[in-house]
Amino acid sequence: MDTRRVEAFSDGVFAVAITVLVFNLLPIAKAGIRSHDLAAAWPQYAGYIVSFLTIGIMWLNHHTVLSYVRRVNRITLVLNLFLLMTVVAVPFPTALVADNLGSGPGSSPASARLAAIVYGLVMIAMSIAFSALWMYLTSHAISLGGTAERPPWQRTIRFSGGGLGYVIAVFVAFASPEAALAIYGALAVYYLFEHLPSPSEKSKTEHVAGGEAAPYSREAEPGSASDS
Amino acid sequence: MDTRRVEAFSDGVFAVAITVLVFNLLPIAKAGIRSHDLAAAWPQYAGYIVSFLTIGIMWLNHHTVLSYVRRVNRITLVLNLFLLMTVVAVPFPTALVADNLGSGPGSSPASARLAAIVYGLVMIAMSIAFSALWMYLTSHAISLGGTAERPPWQRTIRFSGGGLGYVIAVFVAFASPEAALAIYGALAVYYLFEHLPSPSEKSKTEHVAGGEAAPYSREAEPGSASDS
Amino acid sequence: MDTRRVEAFSDGVFAVAITVLVFNLLPIAKAGIRSHDLAAAWPQYAGYIVSFLTIGIMWLNHHTVLSYVRRVNRITLVLNLFLLMTVVAVPFPTALVADNLGSGPGSSPASARLAAIVYGLVMIAMSIAFSALWMYLTSHAISLGGTAERPPWQRTIRFSGGGLGYVIAVFVAFASPEAALAIYGALAVYYLFEHLPSPSEKSKTEHVAGGEAAPYSREAEPGSASDS
Amino acid sequence: MDTRRVEAFSDGVFAVAITVLVFNLLPIAKAGIRSHDLAAAWPQYAGYIVSFLTIGIMWLNHHTVLSYVRRVNRITLVLNLFLLMTVVAVPFPTALVADNLGSGPGSSPASARLAAIVYGLVMIAMSIAFSALWMYLTSHAISLGGTAERPPWQRTIRFSGGGLGYVIAVFVAFASPEAALAIYGALAVYYLFEHLPSPSEKSKTEHVAGGEAAPYSREAEPGSASDS
Repeated sequence: MDTRRVEAFSDGVFAVAITVLVFNLLPIAKAGIRSHDLAAAWPQYAGYIVSFLTIGIMWLNHHTVLSYVRRVNRITLVLNLFLLMTVVAVPFPTALVADNLGSGPGSSPASARLAAIVYGLVMIAMSIAFSALWMYLTSHAISLGGTAERPPWQRTIRFSGGGLGYVIAVFVAFASPEAALAIYGALAVYYLFEHLPSPSEKSKTEHVAGGEAAPYSREAEPGSASDS
Repeated sequence: MDTRRVEAFSDGVFAVAITVLVFNLLPIAKAGIRSHDLAAAWPQYAGYIVSFLTIGIMWLNHHTVLSYVRRVNRITLVLNLFLLMTVVAVPFPTALVADNLGSGPGSSPASARLAAIVYGLVMIAMSIAFSALWMYLTSHAISLGGTAERPPWQRTIRFSGGGLGYVIAVFVAFASPEAALAIYGALAVYYLFEHLPSPSEKSKTEHVAGGEAAPYSREAEPGSASDS
Repeated sequence: MDTRRVEAFSDGVFAVAITVLVFNLLPIAKAGIRSHDLAAAWPQYAGYIVSFLTIGIMWLNHHTVLSYVRRVNRITLVLNLFLLMTVVAVPFPTALVADNLGSGPGSSPASARLAAIVYGLVMIAMSIAFSALWMYLTSHAISLGGTAERPPWQRTIRFSGGGLGYVIAVFVAFASPEAALAIYGALAVYYLFEHLPSPSEKSKTEHVAGGEAAPYSREAEPGSASDS
Repeated sequence: MDTRRVEAFSDGVFAVAITVLVFNLLPIAKAGIRSHDLAAAWPQYAGYIVSFLTIGIMWLNHHTVLSYVRRVNRITLVLNLFLLMTVVAVPFPTALVADNLGSGPGSSPASARLAAIVYGLVMIAMSIAFSALWMYLTSHAISLGGTAERPPWQRTIRFSGGGLGYVIAVFVAFASPEAALAIYGALAVYYLFEHLPSPSEKSKTEHVAGGEAAPYSREAEPGSASDS
């Protein structure tokens, strides 16, 4: 299957999953709302922003990883489906965090801790699913019509290092759920700038020159390469 | 109508339907949540995973079946609409299963049985709608600008054999709703690997060579064919 | 603006709006469900099916009407936005019908009548928005890079005749909301088969021959023309 | 990254966000509804229409701003993500307005004022995010493979002048939330007709002539330029 159709479907899932996050904000809107209520809903806003950035960045990296190949096989599709399954699930731990952090009615220190831990576990599951897809695609790139170029391993290590942050945050959650949420947010910002390398312009151009599918070739990304 | 626009719309519907499944998880998120509550919600997680895989695989097969033709007529569109109607409905039986299996408040053996049966009936409706689309398209492929190649009938039989599994599961549901849910999950995993054959590379290439629409031709999928 | 981007956005809106209809089914799923409850929910199923077919057919006709032009101007975009506004609203009257027809708790003959009338009024608004887009595009087709061919006026009249059905159904709703819902369903089935004509193959081919955008030209639809 | 994929993802987010607005209407649908209830829900309808037009126009302008470049870098993607974060949030202040304006149970003059202010603040955040994207892209257009042509500054000023309206509306909200909502609606209508200029046909044609990506070039929009 051409990567384009996988991208189209995945893009749709990412777009819906990121928009579903607003359903965590809607319960704040009640008749007779007061400024105090709006201020007390900070865990909702924080969860919304952190999860929004996380899904947005995952979308970005998803694009990068697929840019290493030109078509996908059944194994890729299954790995991609598992990744999407974790992305679609993100609104659930986000709702847990929103309902249990802060001083809302019914929340307790124990439930706040549990919520922050579950949030981290879903993030770890997402990281594992993404890494599986990444490792499979970069090691099978040539048989999938992609570039022979491998990403520099230093970048891969730095990138994976970010994944370790989620494990640390889960341990931090036992002491302070708020601090854990702050780490999740910091990791999202980190990934905004420390991202996976795209195949370089040169290898892309060579590939296109010899390929039959030039009209669909992705353009090289000099701007992206130089700005990141 | 070009198959591309049908695929784009159908992809959108599949993407939204698969993401809507997370709404079955959101009610678990309550203020003051305890580990016990999270553990007791296993039917929600099981329903989420089984339905997610089922819709994901249906998306995959939907792509395969459309790859046999190049454009679609009104009958195809109507059959496609009926298929999508069953796909979009999946979150409903999923919610039934999530609410009635396990030991949640209000659920009973009778309601669990009913939920598992309704789940199976929706799956059977989806299988019938898919088979109708499949049979129509493969038997009208040439008039729809597709390949003359027919899928090997052994594969079609093995594939259809999977559909029989849903009927069996519905009968199993009378004895054990949990076992029926396990069969639904097993069928999803089965379909991950026993899938419909794509038109072979050879017939595709011939077609493209003589066609006027080469820029839109799907690439052959040698990786898919050899890995599956 | 190229029609392709309008189609992509509109397709997305249609896909989400059609999937949102399942939210009318989700409240049926309760813990401790009995067969009786499932049977009593027939207005939900009926509303789901009728609205699903209606939006699906509107998507189809939306594609046809845009196929008369090659690009769109600001007026087209505004008219398109109004059409989408009525399409997105469909789940609201569907929920009204689902909650008030049948013998559910709280519903009354008066509320059932009101629900069926509101449903019809939204359908009429959608018909008007669609007709405005249709009339604007067919009368400005050439300046928008489209075909000079006008659809045969007999078809346009027969098509518009269907719109009259919604007005009749609203009057019927005063006597019997159930009969009105049946007419809405019958109109959806009617539109499945009595549809707007696409530009003919001949005019399309001529156009493409002289156009600079051949790679994106829509293919003619001989199958559609002969089967419908 | 090619602008096409950013557009596809953004289109998906816009399409979902605009459709989610219907969830503000669904709570109106209750069993036993009376005409009086439907009439009392005017803030819901008003919020739906104003927010629908606002997101729809933002989609339009988003397309225009991306048409100045041919590919995007990491900074563009981050700015785009912030814009989408404000767009996705729109259903939240819409729900606030819907629940607190009018004479619904629980609403008060203070809560209506607060709702209208929050609505305006989200609009201002959206305007700022959009302006940041606009300024970045037009000032980096050439390095991103876009046109050297800059939009006429008079148009940019008139366009930005509209953004000032949101600030005024927030102050008006202190006196009359209903008047503020009317201004939000008037601003949406204003932006329907006072829109950002697209790159002119001439500069586009030159660009395409020298470009390697002609099959994907956007068509010039003479109809748009003359009709708007």
